Amino acid sequence: MINCSIFAIGNELLEGSIIDTNSAYLARFLSNLGINIKRVNLLKDNLNEIVDALRLAENDSEIIVTTGGLGPTFDDLTSCACAEAFYYDFEVNEIALNHITSMLSSRGVTIKESHKRQAMLPKGCLLFDNKVGTALGFAVKTKKGFCFSLPGIPYEMKHVFESSMLDFIKNNFKLEEVYRLDLKFKGLPESDVDDVIRNIDMPDDVECIINVSKGEIIVRLRSFNLQHLDKVKQILISKLNDNFFGTGDESLQSVLLRKLIENGLTIATAESCTGGLIAKKITDVPGSSSAFLGSIVAYSNDVKSKILHVPEDVLLNYGAVSKECAANMVDGLKKIFNCDLAISVTGIAGPDGGSEEKPVGLVYIGVLFKDAVEVKRYEFRGDREAIRERAANAALSIAIDIIK
Amino acid sequence: MINCSIFAIGNELLEGSIIDTNSAYLARFLSNLGINIKRVNLLKDNLNEIVDALRLAENDSEIIVTTGGLGPTFDDLTSCACAEAFYYDFEVNEIALNHITSMLSSRGVTIKESHKRQAMLPKGCLLFDNKVGTALGFAVKTKKGFCFSLPGIPYEMKHVFESSMLDFIKNNFKLEEVYRLDLKFKGLPESDVDDVIRNIDMPDDVECIINVSKGEIIVRLRSFNLQHLDKVKQILISKLNDNFFGTGDESLQSVLLRKLIENGLTIATAESCTGGLIAKKITDVPGSSSAFLGSIVAYSNDVKSKILHVPEDVLLNYGAVSKECAANMVDGLKKIFNCDLAISVTGIAGPDGGSEEKPVGLVYIGVLFKDAVEVKRYEFRGDREAIRERAANAALSIAIDIIK
Repeated sequence: MINCSIFAIGNELLEGSIIDTNSAYLARFLSNLGINIKRVNLLKDNLNEIVDALRLAENDSEIIVTTGGLGPTFDDLTSCACAEAFYYDFEVNEIALNHITSMLSSRGVTIKESHKRQAMLPKGCLLFDNKVGTALGFAVKTKKGFCFSLPGIPYEMKHVFESSMLDFIKNNFKLEEVYRLDLKFKGLPESDVDDVIRNIDMPDDVECIINVSKGEIIVRLRSFNLQHLDKVKQILISKLNDNFFGTGDESLQSVLLRKLIENGLTIATAESCTGGLIAKKITDVPGSSSAFLGSIVAYSNDVKSKILHVPEDVLLNYGAVSKECAANMVDGLKKIFNCDLAISVTGIAGPDGGSEEKPVGLVYIGVLFKDAVEVKRYEFRGDREAIRERAANAALSIAIDIIK
Repeated sequence: MINCSIFAIGNELLEGSIIDTNSAYLARFLSNLGINIKRVNLLKDNLNEIVDALRLAENDSEIIVTTGGLGPTFDDLTSCACAEAFYYDFEVNEIALNHITSMLSSRGVTIKESHKRQAMLPKGCLLFDNKVGTALGFAVKTKKGFCFSLPGIPYEMKHVFESSMLDFIKNNFKLEEVYRLDLKFKGLPESDVDDVIRNIDMPDDVECIINVSKGEIIVRLRSFNLQHLDKVKQILISKLNDNFFGTGDESLQSVLLRKLIENGLTIATAESCTGGLIAKKITDVPGSSSAFLGSIVAYSNDVKSKILHVPEDVLLNYGAVSKECAANMVDGLKKIFNCDLAISVTGIAGPDGGSEEKPVGLVYIGVLFKDAVEVKRYEFRGDREAIRERAANAALSIAIDIIK
């Protein structure tokens, strides 16, 4: 197996000022090509530390990938570290300089000394184009393979990697494709899934991981043998059929949208405690406009009564966080949007606003489908963010189930 | 300085299936206590690899922190690795077993063999309570200090860390508090900020990092000397006053809410391409109900005309993505919510739907404040997610500026 070391570079990463999302992205792509991710380390903007890490990785990794530290500022040291670690001269690269100059001039920025410094690269390095930013990707030959360097801004990194670097890796390394399958389940505890997996006669070459995230359980399968993978898939889905909702990159929102579009149905949401999160999730999916009409984020009671026409006495007698309010919210929604499926959420996300009777985490979710209204009551655990996330996911789950 | 090694444990991390957010959270807390984050490594669920990493870290780190691998499933190996690495017996911990049993029975789950395995911990370890999950935190003594283990689910990890482990660290290590200040700027390129910083006579003990994220620039300052920090802060704010918007944990949405509440103003949003993202961001802030009334997510043209009363001929002649539509959206919003500040966003987030005349990334943002309507035109770069994020941040920026 080809080994890979991934280094995310930047003091801000080791101080926890920003979260490294690049490494997970790269690890995922490269694992899928059958590459073993040997290490993922975060490194400071410190020349010696970067050089040491690169030299250490050179001994066991055919592929080294760095992200970050290619910008124009004083703390961007990755290019220099690559040159030093692998004994290349470090000099202004004319192609890179031209790229930076033309990219900046198209934005109306005049070139400065710091931008010229950004064009300094290891002599003779391979270049990878960046159509969306000033920092080109580059690679230098190492003992066993190559060290690739990518910009740190996630969408620039993805662009450079996907548009040329990925093909270069496929063409220059002997890779054995791994088959990979993620099965997603909702509405059951991790230990139940674990029980089922333990009792499967799992083929030796199938690797299996269980992941839990905000009410979703993901079983990740990997194997070089597609048939083995498929066999495990069939068993798992048959045993947990009611809770299975999708595979791969599918999310609750993408599955919901697919089902809506397949059935020619439309949806609208009325959100109180989730504050637009469900609408945001649905519209994360490209093409969501085919089924998603819109949302009323009814954060104040006034909006609940004025726009969604929740009767004043419902708000007075039962409160905004009640079964009755959730039911009236979907009724109002249906009248406004004339949607096939209407979903409402009202609850207490915290940290304040809870009481003994109505604790933080209490959420009512209303569903109107084919003129039938149903309201479900939940008590979610976690902080404000977790409660909002779980409430949104529960609403999406209910919507999927009802149109099944 | 006290050194710390952070290990995030889980195959899913090295396969890029989930993003490690725990390490950044811990690194941030510990850096603020003046602890040097020596390394952040992701580790597989492999007993030998975890043991090796822990033993290596023991040589240079007084504090070792692990996250993940404390669950009930077959791939949870952290407790066992801690016992092995630091030569402790590994046995069922009665307190942990009682905790797991009572936590599960309160959820109506009966205890299984896998849960009993979860109660196995290094003999004599210190325990840290977990009120929100089954996995207790624990610590064992190492050569130079302690190795702390935390659950991997972020809100459980935060809860255990903040409710008891943090105090334990403060009480058992000689720490020198670092003063830290993040200054946040909007609406200018990184190189301009870099220019200003290069020309400051920066005191030697002040560490300075520049971060760029979706239209925001964060200058992160750190020093053991509060006066030096303050001096640099004053210079930076005076030179970039128009673009400065907040410090520390303040976000565009929290600054906006603070200003709205201070001035007794209310806000509502009408969102097309951002699809609820602005409402979601505003309602991320606890207490947002004091100023945020709600949002109309007007994804379809039908909703734009029916609910927001954008005239049909505006949609016909200029299209939904137009200055005219954005202006009419805020007018409609004002009539519905009677808010002081109305913000509308309409644009093309992509990947499809762009044309030569109206490319992907084109966004109009409308603002109505004190009966004056203004519409700004933007062309954002990036993918769907980046465009939506930048559009939402631009809308929040405009709102902040207008009530200044």
